[in-house]
Amino acid sequence: MPADLVQLVTSIAQRARAASLVLATTPSARKDAALLRLAELIPASSDSLLAANALDLAEARANQLPSHQLDRLTLTPARLDQLAESVRQVAALPDPVGTVLEEWTRPNGILIRKRRVPIGVIGIIYEARPNVTIDCAILCLKSGNAAILRGGKEIFHTNTAFAALITQALAETGLPASAVQLIPTTDRAALNTLLKLDTLVHCIIPRGGESLIRFVAQNSTIPVIKHYTGVCFVYADQDADPAIAEAILINAKTQRPGVCNAAEQLLVHAGAAPTLLPRLAAALIAKGVQLRCDPAALALLAGAPESQISAATAADYTSEFLDLILAVRIVPDLETAITTINRDSSGHTEAIITQNETSARRFQDAVDSAVVTWNASTRFNDGFEFGFGAEIGISTDRLHARGPMGLNELCTYKYVIDGIGQVRA
Amino acid sequence: MPADLVQLVTSIAQRARAASLVLATTPSARKDAALLRLAELIPASSDSLLAANALDLAEARANQLPSHQLDRLTLTPARLDQLAESVRQVAALPDPVGTVLEEWTRPNGILIRKRRVPIGVIGIIYEARPNVTIDCAILCLKSGNAAILRGGKEIFHTNTAFAALITQALAETGLPASAVQLIPTTDRAALNTLLKLDTLVHCIIPRGGESLIRFVAQNSTIPVIKHYTGVCFVYADQDADPAIAEAILINAKTQRPGVCNAAEQLLVHAGAAPTLLPRLAAALIAKGVQLRCDPAALALLAGAPESQISAATAADYTSEFLDLILAVRIVPDLETAITTINRDSSGHTEAIITQNETSARRFQDAVDSAVVTWNASTRFNDGFEFGFGAEIGISTDRLHARGPMGLNELCTYKYVIDGIGQVRA
Repeated sequence: MPADLVQLVTSIAQRARAASLVLATTPSARKDAALLRLAELIPASSDSLLAANALDLAEARANQLPSHQLDRLTLTPARLDQLAESVRQVAALPDPVGTVLEEWTRPNGILIRKRRVPIGVIGIIYEARPNVTIDCAILCLKSGNAAILRGGKEIFHTNTAFAALITQALAETGLPASAVQLIPTTDRAALNTLLKLDTLVHCIIPRGGESLIRFVAQNSTIPVIKHYTGVCFVYADQDADPAIAEAILINAKTQRPGVCNAAEQLLVHAGAAPTLLPRLAAALIAKGVQLRCDPAALALLAGAPESQISAATAADYTSEFLDLILAVRIVPDLETAITTINRDSSGHTEAIITQNETSARRFQDAVDSAVVTWNASTRFNDGFEFGFGAEIGISTDRLHARGPMGLNELCTYKYVIDGIGQVRA
Repeated sequence: MPADLVQLVTSIAQRARAASLVLATTPSARKDAALLRLAELIPASSDSLLAANALDLAEARANQLPSHQLDRLTLTPARLDQLAESVRQVAALPDPVGTVLEEWTRPNGILIRKRRVPIGVIGIIYEARPNVTIDCAILCLKSGNAAILRGGKEIFHTNTAFAALITQALAETGLPASAVQLIPTTDRAALNTLLKLDTLVHCIIPRGGESLIRFVAQNSTIPVIKHYTGVCFVYADQDADPAIAEAILINAKTQRPGVCNAAEQLLVHAGAAPTLLPRLAAALIAKGVQLRCDPAALALLAGAPESQISAATAADYTSEFLDLILAVRIVPDLETAITTINRDSSGHTEAIITQNETSARRFQDAVDSAVVTWNASTRFNDGFEFGFGAEIGISTDRLHARGPMGLNELCTYKYVIDGIGQVRA
């Protein structure tokens, strides 16, 4: 480990820790002032931001990045306006810090209050999406946390330009400039150093592909909140309303197939399948979806176009396709649907389609996933759809935060006790 | 890594995961029946429990364990009765599972409920206290979690006897016998295997000395909730009531000096110190406390017996003595007290003694610790004192649970959404 890198990252973390103690008691109005100043600076600095972005894009083209990745990297004046608008929206959200979550008095008269407070210093490890830099910075700032950002090398110049604007906005409004810091190198050794600074950094949130998240989880001695992607199931029950099943399945599978809350797996109750599955399959095929079927489903879809239907492999049943592909199985009953899901899903989001409330409640009770919907699309597992106003991601962990993470989930709590001299008996 | 150990531990974790899915929907009455049966079995099996304990004690004596450790290991009929009583008390507590924590409806009509659910499978890594086996088993069971217990080699026979009783109670009341399992070896390789089973085990709670906890935190790919000990501060403000300061300090330092919420550090405001510190010192010295003082405190205590007063070293100011020793410093003002604490404390529990509410509120806002008391003893950072009825420990982490961990803190949540066919726009 190069000593200068260790020193660089340690010093960033020390400054972040000092800034976090200031932020923890900074009034909402001052945090919002910094956010609103940033929202002004983004469009006002569009020339320099676009110039920095052009450097990243030139490298990306030279490295022959695929076009969808190039698109993600690209900033435009319109995208900068959107970013500035998202900063104003976060400024307008209520401040999560200081809320009294619970309050009670003990028989000895001490008053205990459980109060929401910032976590402290949060490290965000991400890849090549420039909006993540702004999103994470503003969510951490609004929730009173100091942020250490470590983005991918593909957006290094863009990130550096954004980080300079954030620092400027902080400094101009009297907040510690170290409240948001970008690690100024994408050297893996710097990341490895950061992941061991467990006395200075309190939480790591990796955002990106599975291999990045796994690397972070395996190498961090700091608690990690993981944001893996999802193998999400839709279960069409015996008592499903066919129109609802069709509408939800089309939405869950095709509205945005590349995201974590898109459906990847369909289970159909054997009692409903003979009529329901052909209808669902026709609608899916019309949207260009490929179906990978178990033998029973294959038999029911004998008339469908061969180009869109194939026999599933075992791996398909636990796959996150992130594409217009759906694995399809027939199950004999609700309980088999539940055990299949608890074995094969990633615990992200599952849906039951049924008109039978007893079946719906059993499914919601027994399915061990972060979000379990009844007659609603899996796509609703999302901070904006939950009404959180903004999200840092969707946690696939069980500890601390599960599902969409908004400002509240970027906080922890402390207990504040008032007494008049009580001692322990 | 021996293949048979890997297979053994993996198979324990797989059975625990299966049991956890059953426990998650097991009604309270059935969990309580298993607990009450265990409470019957403990005194009824005292002969075999004491015989197993005698084997551990004989080994401990042969290994010349110190007497306070021998005492911790020792079971007696009276201690077994106490354990059985604690099992009955946990059975009588309300079931945390299923509580709706929040509930709201979105403009599109979907109803979102955030519901408390068990975490899943919890691994408890501990050392040589036999009561931990029963405490952790019953708290996990009551909260619907499957438990994997890995105790120290010093209590291996005792643990094995307890585990057999727990299995019997589970089996006799129709719950999965794998809901609580003891790893039947204290081989470090088995522990290392467990700490990597992140697809089957959802949370690790290490309880014991700092080196054990550090080992677990550094080697686990499963989220860990740490229970480190505390470097707790008492700050006697300029406006402290001397009688309250004395009572709280004596309680916090001397009532049980070996525990994590005992005071280790005293800060006294310079304006109050000339009269207050001699009074506090006299009371502490009368209780046998050794004072390790900064130069200013030393000067104020010139008349005190030399055997009880000495100059502090730098290390004393961040030490957890766990003994009748207290480090003492004079601070010029409240803000210096706050920055000193945020730099030198372990973030466990801190107290301010003052009659000035403005100072108290500033201290409670700015001190970044799990529990911050005003005119109340640090010893109140405890699950029983909080009214939780039982505790699995006191978290020194910020994520998931902070401070005392009772049944609620052994749960996570899931979101349950009800719709009538809504899809995402």
